[in-house]
Amino acid sequence: MKTVRVATAVAYDVRIGPGLLAGAHEAVRGRSACAVVSDKKVTRLYKSSVGTLADSPWFELEPGEDSKSFATLERVLDFQSRSRLDRRSTLIAFGGGVVGDVGGMAAALYMRGIQYVQVPTTLLAQVDSSVGGKTAVNLAAGKNLAGVFHQPSLVIADTSTLATLSDDEFRSGLGEVIKTALLTGADALALLERDASRIWSRDPSALETVVEMCVRTKAAIVSRDPHEKGPRKLLNLGHTFAHAIEHEAGYGKVPHGVAVGVGLCLALATSQRTQRLADPELPARVDALLAAFGMPRSLAALTGVKLDPARLVSAMSLDKKNAAGKLRLVLPVSAGDAIFDVEVDEPSLLATLRAPHSA
Amino acid sequence: MKTVRVATAVAYDVRIGPGLLAGAHEAVRGRSACAVVSDKKVTRLYKSSVGTLADSPWFELEPGEDSKSFATLERVLDFQSRSRLDRRSTLIAFGGGVVGDVGGMAAALYMRGIQYVQVPTTLLAQVDSSVGGKTAVNLAAGKNLAGVFHQPSLVIADTSTLATLSDDEFRSGLGEVIKTALLTGADALALLERDASRIWSRDPSALETVVEMCVRTKAAIVSRDPHEKGPRKLLNLGHTFAHAIEHEAGYGKVPHGVAVGVGLCLALATSQRTQRLADPELPARVDALLAAFGMPRSLAALTGVKLDPARLVSAMSLDKKNAAGKLRLVLPVSAGDAIFDVEVDEPSLLATLRAPHSA
Repeated sequence: MKTVRVATAVAYDVRIGPGLLAGAHEAVRGRSACAVVSDKKVTRLYKSSVGTLADSPWFELEPGEDSKSFATLERVLDFQSRSRLDRRSTLIAFGGGVVGDVGGMAAALYMRGIQYVQVPTTLLAQVDSSVGGKTAVNLAAGKNLAGVFHQPSLVIADTSTLATLSDDEFRSGLGEVIKTALLTGADALALLERDASRIWSRDPSALETVVEMCVRTKAAIVSRDPHEKGPRKLLNLGHTFAHAIEHEAGYGKVPHGVAVGVGLCLALATSQRTQRLADPELPARVDALLAAFGMPRSLAALTGVKLDPARLVSAMSLDKKNAAGKLRLVLPVSAGDAIFDVEVDEPSLLATLRAPHSA
Repeated sequence: MKTVRVATAVAYDVRIGPGLLAGAHEAVRGRSACAVVSDKKVTRLYKSSVGTLADSPWFELEPGEDSKSFATLERVLDFQSRSRLDRRSTLIAFGGGVVGDVGGMAAALYMRGIQYVQVPTTLLAQVDSSVGGKTAVNLAAGKNLAGVFHQPSLVIADTSTLATLSDDEFRSGLGEVIKTALLTGADALALLERDASRIWSRDPSALETVVEMCVRTKAAIVSRDPHEKGPRKLLNLGHTFAHAIEHEAGYGKVPHGVAVGVGLCLALATSQRTQRLADPELPARVDALLAAFGMPRSLAALTGVKLDPARLVSAMSLDKKNAAGKLRLVLPVSAGDAIFDVEVDEPSLLATLRAPHSA
């Protein structure tokens, strides 16, 4: 088991390793009460693995992005109240990114904030969304437009749970893994390239190494900038493209990590077109990694959706990271080096989206 | 005009005086965009007084407690998105306590937090709810059960707007004024006793003095304890009773400040019964002040509602301030001295609620 410490104003540990679910109940020892928010699928697969925690009040979301709504959030808040949680209680978010985002936000709002523990069960949640305290639901106008920063008190990433993910769910996390390797540096990229087939076959030790690498990088970045005033924006590499893709395709149609994978290719292409890319081999390396994991590498390769470049640009302009109507992107420069708050004009963005690589 | 500085992690000014609405637009100078959330009544009365601010996107809530709902909150969030606010924009909450609570929470959640300015137009909002960063909506299970701390960047309390309040609305604020005087000390209580009739006739200079006294006390308390870990709980004097009264009567039936007035009497009676009251004249002085303002001084005097003491105690046990199932109250000791986190057993609470004074 690895423990990574996240030192925001309130520091907390991220525990990573196989078989950690059985000890999860220890996280709520001494609390006045606890309750669990999960989804139907995770409950069916893993409720029997969490020992005495299974006796706690338990709320099951419908799996999927549709649960990231205000209506669901209100139901989880009502559930906390029915479970008689008070300010010294703990909510446990047990599941993937949707459960973590909605559960974390419900804990943040209940009585103006109670403690919560993230128990992520997907690769996406373990390498990214469970760490850093971002919580959110979607608005009609866009993804994650309503939310709050609320750090968990503990994250328990049981890597055994990754074995039951479908290939598509697993790929969804790999998009974030490649993004994080790009931000981490040459060694991290080389590690993925070397271990690609072990990772794809879900070798337990390779998975633990990958999750730890991603959590260490994310912890280092969010510790420096918990509220995304500056360098934390780097974590949005590929995401302005990805959010626009998800928005235009209709939420839930394109898995988040898959959209991020394509977003990384588009960010690299934009970086190249606007002459910010210092390492010309980077696009081919990311391309090869995506290929090794069987992931789409262009807009055209996204199955079942047809996206209009002009509409994508318009959706991108709604992104939270913009300011004063200007589109701002994170662009990769080389392995371990990216720049944020880069203003990119719409014509060159459109040209990138219309290029053969994208179309 | 008076300016009180509130020094939480981010300090901000509270401006108090007549005729301040006309300059409110200066609060958003230099921001990327702004929008106003108000209610239908305040809009009708005062939209013409806010100069160029009236040209901003404008959202009108239905007046009243029913607007403190998740459904309304989501509509205000959608409004901010339609108004194309970004992270450098400002939301202005222009109205009474409901507008401030919902508007503040909508600003706190939009893109995980944008700036907002409170422009309170009721006595209740000017002396209490606009300062300190508490935002909330109600859940089915109780008042203000969902919320977040989010400090405004500025508060503009135009005391001219108090002239158009109905007597009932004005009384609603007077409950908080008496509570604050009790916490402030002997001079503040004496000021209210001396100026009671000038206050009741809404003498502008008396009102400005009262608002300033309340804001100074509240600012001093929330600066020491912005997230209500300790001494900020003092501000809940009378409120555990008041929330239970409002809950049992049905939200909106008993005005908040009126419930607080009765709550103060019940807190004093509890303090007396449990032998914590050092100044035996305090109940009679508070009683006389409530009488001077024509406010109910007991449960029985609340018109149009019949409240069952046992059900009130049960509702009180749901209050946010409790921990581990124990009922905890703020109890007055003498003018300027109160104690918080006092555990009170249910039998003596029931006896207080059933005493002739209450019944």
